[in-house]
Order: sequence, then C-alpha cells, then structure tokens
Amino acid sequence: MSDLSQFVIPRGFRFGAVKAGLKQSGRTDFALIVADAPASAAAAFTGNRVKAAPLLIDAQNLRATGGKVRVVAINAGNANCAVGQAGMDAAQATCQAAAEVFHCKPEEVFPSSTGVIGVPLPAEKLAAVLPGLADSIGAESDHFQQVAEAIITTDTVEKTAFARFDVKTPENDGPGEIPQEVRIAAVCKGSGMIHPQLVPHATMLVYILTDAAIEPAVLDTYLCQAVEVSFNRISVDGDTSTNDTVLLLASGASGVRIGTRNAAFSAALTHVCTSLARQVVADGEGVSHLVELDIRGAESDSDALRVAKAIAHSLLVKTAWAGCDPNWGRLVAAIGYSGAQLNPETIDISFGELPICRNGGRALEFNESAAHAYLIQPEYSITIDLRRGSGKCRFWTTDLTHEYIRINADYTT
Amino acid sequence: MSDLSQFVIPRGFRFGAVKAGLKQSGRTDFALIVADAPASAAAAFTGNRVKAAPLLIDAQNLRATGGKVRVVAINAGNANCAVGQAGMDAAQATCQAAAEVFHCKPEEVFPSSTGVIGVPLPAEKLAAVLPGLADSIGAESDHFQQVAEAIITTDTVEKTAFARFDVKTPENDGPGEIPQEVRIAAVCKGSGMIHPQLVPHATMLVYILTDAAIEPAVLDTYLCQAVEVSFNRISVDGDTSTNDTVLLLASGASGVRIGTRNAAFSAALTHVCTSLARQVVADGEGVSHLVELDIRGAESDSDALRVAKAIAHSLLVKTAWAGCDPNWGRLVAAIGYSGAQLNPETIDISFGELPICRNGGRALEFNESAAHAYLIQPEYSITIDLRRGSGKCRFWTTDLTHEYIRINADYTT
Repeated sequence: MSDLSQFVIPRGFRFGAVKAGLKQSGRTDFALIVADAPASAAAAFTGNRVKAAPLLIDAQNLRATGGKVRVVAINAGNANCAVGQAGMDAAQATCQAAAEVFHCKPEEVFPSSTGVIGVPLPAEKLAAVLPGLADSIGAESDHFQQVAEAIITTDTVEKTAFARFDVKTPENDGPGEIPQEVRIAAVCKGSGMIHPQLVPHATMLVYILTDAAIEPAVLDTYLCQAVEVSFNRISVDGDTSTNDTVLLLASGASGVRIGTRNAAFSAALTHVCTSLARQVVADGEGVSHLVELDIRGAESDSDALRVAKAIAHSLLVKTAWAGCDPNWGRLVAAIGYSGAQLNPETIDISFGELPICRNGGRALEFNESAAHAYLIQPEYSITIDLRRGSGKCRFWTTDLTHEYIRINADYTT
Repeated sequence: MSDLSQFVIPRGFRFGAVKAGLKQSGRTDFALIVADAPASAAAAFTGNRVKAAPLLIDAQNLRATGGKVRVVAINAGNANCAVGQAGMDAAQATCQAAAEVFHCKPEEVFPSSTGVIGVPLPAEKLAAVLPGLADSIGAESDHFQQVAEAIITTDTVEKTAFARFDVKTPENDGPGEIPQEVRIAAVCKGSGMIHPQLVPHATMLVYILTDAAIEPAVLDTYLCQAVEVSFNRISVDGDTSTNDTVLLLASGASGVRIGTRNAAFSAALTHVCTSLARQVVADGEGVSHLVELDIRGAESDSDALRVAKAIAHSLLVKTAWAGCDPNWGRLVAAIGYSGAQLNPETIDISFGELPICRNGGRALEFNESAAHAYLIQPEYSITIDLRRGSGKCRFWTTDLTHEYIRINADYTT
C-alpha cells in the first residue's frame, strides 16, 4: 500500500462534473459518481442535531435499499440546510431527476450539498444539467479529478487519496497463487466549519470508492473504525457542520471479496481516510501551521481526546501558534480546563524533541529561541504526557490567523 | 440602588497601589485592599484543574481563618502559575511580608496574581515596596481607583461598579425608622482568557467590598448566587483561566447586619457583579461588538446555557459578527451541535425585534439589509427560542476580530 503518483481508480465507477450555476465564482459545482451497478454503501453523517436535508434523505434511502447506491449527486455552493420542507423537496427532486436519467430507483441516489446555509437550493438547475452531465461521465482519472474540483468551496486545493493492495488467491488448477488487486480512491472537500463529529448511519464531504466486494454491514464496521481515528480527530475551527458526510462505496468490480477483519483492507482504508483528514486540516481556512497533537498518559483515551480538543479549540493557543509564540502556559491552561483527570504537577510538554514543560513547570532545558524556531515550521507536532495512565490519542489541528478572520467576516454579504 | 456617578466607598477599607516593576509598561502593578479589622470573606475560584499558586494559598488561608481576610495583595504582570513549588513559596512570602507590615497573621492575607503564565514571580520585588505602599493607603475614591488601575493587564479601561441601598431599622425610642446605608464597591480586571467557570470556595480578578456585617457562610451563599448569573455567564474567547478569582469582603463598618435571603443585598450584589461582567466582555481583547444572548424555550436552564456557550464559542459565528454579517445559518449550526435537546423545526431566532429565523428556516420577514444594519451597532441582543420547554439563560459574549489575533499572536515574545 502506498500513495501513488498516478491515479488508480477503482473499477465499476464513472465520474463527471458540470456548471449548474450555484457557485458565484462560475466554476463547476455539480458532480456525479455513478456505480455501474448498485454498490454496497456505508455512510457516516454529522452528529449535529441540525442536519441538512440531503443527509436526512440519504439516511432514508440507505435504509430503503439495505445499503445500496447507484448515483452520488453532489452540489457545492448551497448547503440545502435550514430551509424547511423546501430542502427535503429539493433533495428528493434531485433523486428523482437522477433516477430518470440513470434508470434506477430514486432511493438508489445519494444527494449531497455544501455551501451557504439557509438559502433554498434551486434543484431545477441540477435537473436541467443532469442529462448532459450523464453523457459526459467516464472512468478515467481525469473524470475523477473533475469531481474533486467541483465539490470544493473555500478549499484552496482539491483533496484526493488512493491506496491499493494485492490479495493472493489460490489458482483454480494448481498450487500457485494469483495476486488480485483491490483499489481504493477517495475524494473530499472541507476547509472551514471543520470539527467533524461523525456518528455511524459530517461541511466536510468525503467519498471513498473501492472495487472490492463487501457487504454493506461489513462495510459499515470498516468505515466506523477508520472514521474514528481520522475525520473524528481533526478540527480547524471547532464548528461541527450540519452537512458533514462520509460515504464509502464498494462496487465489487475487482472480483475480490473482503470479509470481516481484513487487515489489509482496514489499513488501506485508514490510510486513505487519515490522508484526507490531514489534507482538510492543512487546507483549513487561513491556516499557516498544521499541528499534530500527540496526547499520552491520560487516564483514558476519551480523556486524551478531551485534552486534544481543548487545545485545538483554544483561541489563545491557536493565536500563539499563528505568532510562532512558544507560550506553553496557554497549553497548560487549556489542559487544565479540558475536563480530563490530571495532576498539575505531572504535566510534560514537548515541541517535537524539545522539552518545554516538565512537572507542570518550565523545563530546565527550555530554550525560547529554539522553541520559537520549531514553531516557525509549517507542520510540527506537540506531545503532551499527563503521566497518569495509558490513555492516548493523535489529533490534527491548526493555528488561527488574520486570514481566517478575513475569510469568515465576509461570507454571504 | 443605582449606579452612582460619584464613588461611594464602603467603610472599613483602605486602598493603594505602587510600581513593583512587574509590568513591562512600567505602570503600577501591585495593589492592596486592607480591611481595618478582619473582614468576613467569601471567594470563588476557577474551575480549571490547573490553578495558580495564589489560589491554592487563598483557599488554605480561608479555611484556616474560617473566612476572614485583613489584606488583599494583588499583582499584575505575572500570573504565578505553572512554576511549581517556587509559585507556592512566592505566594507565601507575600503573605508573610504583608502580615509583618500590617501586624496580622499570614493566613489573613489573600494574594492574587494575573499576567503571563510559567514565569517565576519575583516576590522579593513585592516585599520591597510593601512598607512604602502601606504608608500610602487611604479610604478615598482616589485610592480605590488606584487599585483598578494597577490590576489591569491587556484591559483598555478600568472596571468598577457600585451600589448602595438603605435598610430601615426601628428607632430605639419611638415608632420611627432610621435609614441606614449599606455600600458595595467592586473592582475587577479581565479582557482575554475570559470564560470564567467559577466554582465556590476564576485571568479575571474581582474584588467586591461591602460595609454590611455578614457572616462568612452567609456571604458564600450570596456570592454563589450572584456569580452564577454574572461572571459564569460571560465568554470572550472560551479560554478558562488558571487564575480567575472573585473575592467578596464584608467589613461590617456600616453597622448593618445582613442575614440570609435579604433581597436588597442580593439585588445590589447581583447588580454590581452583572455590571462588572458586562464591562469585562465589552473590554474583551479586540472586541468590536458586545452581544447579549437571550436563550429561551430550552428543555432546561442547563440546555439553554449549552446553546449560549456553543454560540459564544463558535469562531464562525464570532467572525460573522465581526463582519456585521447576518449569516444566521452559522447560529443554527452552533445550536445544532450544542448538545441541547431540540427540534430543528422549532428554532426561532431574532436580532432584537427583527425576525430572522422561524421554524428552523429563514423568516418570511427576513430583511438582509435591516439585519445587517442591526449588527453594525456596538451592542445588541440576539434571542433564540427553541420552543421546547421553559429553560432559559442570558449570556454576554463578543465578536472575534483581527485585533484579537494581533494582541494574542505576539504576547510573550
């Protein structure tokens, strides 16, 4: 398994995108992922109690089909959220239009939306361009890339990740083994309102495709495990979106059947999810530093996560990072109010290999200029050891810059 | 009870401040509040698990004396936090030095510190200036004002609040009543790292003085009630400090004894605390808008508070406010992830009297330019009605501006 410089697109899917006129920029804003036949599907949606209309329709559709998806229809520029019944109607109209074009059931369509909240989605614009879009879809890497471009909003780069691995199966007529390849390709968008709290069956949209053959229930288990250590371990601004969605589709077109507890598939999926999660954080709105938090020695894993989130959401910590300021006292304060069990006298902090805080006070080796130099790097890690238990977590977050303020103090107006 | 244009200083206290050399600005940074005789005391400290050394000493001292304080010794420029045993030693050295100068027990001294975390406090600088400071203290409003000036750090204005009320007591020799006056004066500092989570017995420092005669246990009850609806209902940046402290002293010098459930005292104290809490928010780092959140119709008061805090801590909401942007979808998203029980279809939002969101969607009367104009005001209120129960709360918070980033991206360096 490795990142590939070339696109390796799972078999059994086609892709395309078009301009439907939703983005003010005039860029492509409506994308399709179409499975040649109904694909096994597992999805995770935002834990926000206010969920955009497409998420409610998606959950309904997945229940109705027992976890099968033919068409994923994704628009950017409008979140189709907080618009009442009109939102449900718009999402369903999209399902209906796609079902007609692709000769499938409306329940086999998975609509997704991202963009501004509270403005009705003009579904008729999507329906109008659907037939032309359907004619243009294809299975090449260029087509896949079109999806990556169409779904972004405030993102500055497209985000994709790939993995593949071989499964050795016995030859039918001998002692040899035939390697069979399984491919995974994933595409996502997300830059602001990033603090996914995904719950099984997140404005982050993630689509992961594989050509392995996997039952929907089994696919669910793999997705939950991978999401928990990737998308649920990132935060840009602490705002959990109404639209976050992670969809995993398995076409089966490789001919390789994957059952439960397949370590190779699990590792490949986690690799792809973690890669995308880091890409989302690195492209967070106004971000100048990507920070990996390595929390150890907590009473429990959930306590470690509390510490990571308190730090990731502290404006004082995030602004200190923006200034490359080794003000570790702000870290100590955030650890203190995290709610985690701790002894103030056993808190150790290091920036990479540099000891910063030991036993809750300034480390003897603390060197302000070295610490400052470390924090100038665009990516770095901070380790916090509470020396209390074996709870741990890894979490990715960002600094908070003038650029974030600029982007978000003037969005709809 | 009313705010007074003139200072009305409770009897039984003297005040003063001096330059001890802790503030880089060279301004006064060490203040004293001295009770003529041991005053009844009630205190609330930060809920942060990492507590600055003076808070630990204060709690010890209050236990040792049964709630009596002679001298409050407050330094700004250094938080005396996260410096290990040296911090405890410095706080105790200050108690010792003040006890010698004022001929009291070291346990009757209440040290307080605010400023940078993680740098040892040079207590010898405080001890050196104490005798001269002791000679300069006085009971006039000018002396009180010296305290307000000395304890501020990133604050741009001094913060004080006053109240008085009359208690009518029967004349000794007739049917008439003699009005006796009770005075309350309070002083505080706080601008950044403001999200007090005070627990009975918070970098916000608050000192409230009254000349009523009140037992320490009774004083505690009054303080808890007042803090809960004032300092525990504000947030500038969501960072809960290691040093927050609210101290209420009662000298008894008015000769008026206040027992439990005295409505006039409770109202006056709440008035003073609420005034100071609003002053802290209004002077929050980089703040350009003070926002009052009025949450109603929640399942419980604690759910209402969850909604208020989610909004107050949402970077996307706070930056929209900075831009006077009526992007109410961000409010809906924050309400949704607050953890409060809610129906997305019954969320109503208004800006002052302007209907913005009704039944979870854009109100019919929504007028973007009117909403924008409303948000240009320096102070305004937003009402959120979940239409689910009778839980409610009022909360004060701020926008998030470029100036906050400027102030905090370059603090110690």
